[in-house]
Amino acid sequence: MGELKNVIVGQSGGPTAVINSSLAGVFRTAKMNGAKNIYGMRHGIQGLLEEKCVNMSNYIKSELEIELLKRTPSSYLGSCRYKLPALGEDDSVYEKIFAILNKMEIDAFFYIGGNDSMDTIAKLSTYAEQIGSPIRFIGVPKTIDNDLAVTDHTPGFGSAAKFIASTVKELSRDALVYDASSVTVLEIMGRNAGWLTAATALARGEDCSGPDLILLPELPVDIDEVVEKIAELQKKKKSVMVAISEGAKGLDGRYLCETLASSREMIDAFGHRALTGSGRCIADKVAEELNCKTRAVEFSTLQRCASHIVARVDMTEAFQVGASAVMAALNGETGKMITLVRKMAEPYICVTDVYDVKKIANLEKKLPIEWIDKDNYWVTDDFIFYARPLIQAELYPFMIDGVPKHIVIPD
Amino acid sequence: MGELKNVIVGQSGGPTAVINSSLAGVFRTAKMNGAKNIYGMRHGIQGLLEEKCVNMSNYIKSELEIELLKRTPSSYLGSCRYKLPALGEDDSVYEKIFAILNKMEIDAFFYIGGNDSMDTIAKLSTYAEQIGSPIRFIGVPKTIDNDLAVTDHTPGFGSAAKFIASTVKELSRDALVYDASSVTVLEIMGRNAGWLTAATALARGEDCSGPDLILLPELPVDIDEVVEKIAELQKKKKSVMVAISEGAKGLDGRYLCETLASSREMIDAFGHRALTGSGRCIADKVAEELNCKTRAVEFSTLQRCASHIVARVDMTEAFQVGASAVMAALNGETGKMITLVRKMAEPYICVTDVYDVKKIANLEKKLPIEWIDKDNYWVTDDFIFYARPLIQAELYPFMIDGVPKHIVIPD
Repeated sequence: MGELKNVIVGQSGGPTAVINSSLAGVFRTAKMNGAKNIYGMRHGIQGLLEEKCVNMSNYIKSELEIELLKRTPSSYLGSCRYKLPALGEDDSVYEKIFAILNKMEIDAFFYIGGNDSMDTIAKLSTYAEQIGSPIRFIGVPKTIDNDLAVTDHTPGFGSAAKFIASTVKELSRDALVYDASSVTVLEIMGRNAGWLTAATALARGEDCSGPDLILLPELPVDIDEVVEKIAELQKKKKSVMVAISEGAKGLDGRYLCETLASSREMIDAFGHRALTGSGRCIADKVAEELNCKTRAVEFSTLQRCASHIVARVDMTEAFQVGASAVMAALNGETGKMITLVRKMAEPYICVTDVYDVKKIANLEKKLPIEWIDKDNYWVTDDFIFYARPLIQAELYPFMIDGVPKHIVIPD
Repeated sequence: MGELKNVIVGQSGGPTAVINSSLAGVFRTAKMNGAKNIYGMRHGIQGLLEEKCVNMSNYIKSELEIELLKRTPSSYLGSCRYKLPALGEDDSVYEKIFAILNKMEIDAFFYIGGNDSMDTIAKLSTYAEQIGSPIRFIGVPKTIDNDLAVTDHTPGFGSAAKFIASTVKELSRDALVYDASSVTVLEIMGRNAGWLTAATALARGEDCSGPDLILLPELPVDIDEVVEKIAELQKKKKSVMVAISEGAKGLDGRYLCETLASSREMIDAFGHRALTGSGRCIADKVAEELNCKTRAVEFSTLQRCASHIVARVDMTEAFQVGASAVMAALNGETGKMITLVRKMAEPYICVTDVYDVKKIANLEKKLPIEWIDKDNYWVTDDFIFYARPLIQAELYPFMIDGVPKHIVIPD
């Protein structure tokens, strides 16, 4: 086992409810293994390039504060969306990064993020190899979208899925309250991968029918067929609920929101706005065709920062991948991502491993087609069997004076 | 102390996260005091008129199920929006209701709801007096909007306020993640009363600045001044957050959403949709004027059914007003609403009382003007001092297999 003097860690891409648990895993494990300084990049690699770094021990001084960090949503260190240029294209950025890292006497570099972050780790570790730098580069997986290859799942997905499934149950109760027909359309994050939208299925149980239809980005949505199915469902039940991914596409391959909302968007003079959500589009279409009460609910950014309802399984695994990244660096690994490997499905047992980050970066893991029940616009039991263990158990925030307490870096 | 043979209870209006705690309070207290049958109206008075009633003991058979009922959001019995005709106008409805109640041998009638429900209690108790019926009519306050007169506050408000304040804290962390200017606009329920929008102020603390501006329906919003204030704030901070009530109005007295969104709505061919939210309108205006990243987040129906994060104070008081309604009926009261009376502010001590429902029904309690800091678009410390005790403490759902367990009446 090697030694670590100074290490640096950054967070990148969209936040999750448990991304700071991975940061806590890196920090605590590096500290326990004798790292002298544990630096944090403010706003990822973009901040590093501006030498905006903090010495984390100045801010996180006790076990209590480590626990608080785990329970604080969004990226404690700040995030960025910065993609390194291709190697050989503009090496001045790489020279600058390594000059800064060498000046700080960094042994190991940890980056917590999704596909783009793994691309960063792949490039930096390749460049290090080229110039003969001993700095180790390890990726720590994180994304609510669950779209990273090789790893069984990604930390952040379980908590987002738990929030979504729990909320679907609550909204189902709400939708049933009046003795009248209604259609509720829930718009869920996931531009190309339907994992989170599929997670609405976890709401189904003996006390809840869950969504009636699940519209995923993996398969084209026949909107006329969907309206027909809703009309059919309305003969049997008052409240019909449809879950749709923000990235669902129509038969012509275009995003549904583009197809339906274009006329409305075009007259909008402001120009800065993203397209109206796919959920609103389905709700409009249903209202037009079936003349019944409709409601569109956007789950919005809350699904990635609702740390008041996280899955303890997810929180623990997020910590473990951070801790395992440090152990991998101690073992001399570089150019690797920590993966989660499901050793046993029932009872659920999961361990960490390391994997060549070049074989992961820039791939996008979609929901397997065989887990989609195309005819019924639903998911198969295989998906439920896969996802159910990931949303188990709870870990509540430290509540102070009625609201969750968070730890923040002072300005 | 009198006796109760058969009692009936109904729920009306919009649901809350704790409305079933009041139902549990009625049920358990009536049962403990010897009521023979405790009937529940399906979908309030509308269901009663169709004789759609259930014997609650057939469905709630144990203390565990009473606890589960408390933790189930939305109206267990179903709800309605039914307003009784004025007395003397069409008494046939009243004759029908009393015929049904007499047939069921009802001694006491409990109605859990807001202003319209209290109007129902006022009318039914007046009619009972006119015809010499001994049936007692007691109102149980409920509304997230906190707009009922006389009572210090209404059950349902505290939990909605807790969800809102907690969510604002989480969204604040999310909004700060990138090193770039952004404006987030949060749209909160409350058409005429700003209590819930004001509750966003409870997010402010040593770890969170909370919303920067709070736009309430009680005072006209000068949208140009708001944009100026946002521009001013952007000189000092990256992330600016604005909370706005869905019912905020402009200087001309029109709803803001109407003012700004009309052109977009008018070309919408569907016709069934409500106006776009006020939050989206402010976000559009800011994007247009200040050319920065904006995001509008609608809190949607989740704010009234998020039973996964309730205030235990609220949950307990919701039970207590239900229980006190039964005790009031036992004491021979009728035509009354149960009120909450704050006996002491610090430490917070609150008791129940009874009050003439005719002096409560159809009034609307708005946020006091003196609790609004007009110049700064904020609320005063008096509001915080009033609201903070109401969001205290937690009571979590019974979590089964990763999601909250609810109790439902089988179809």
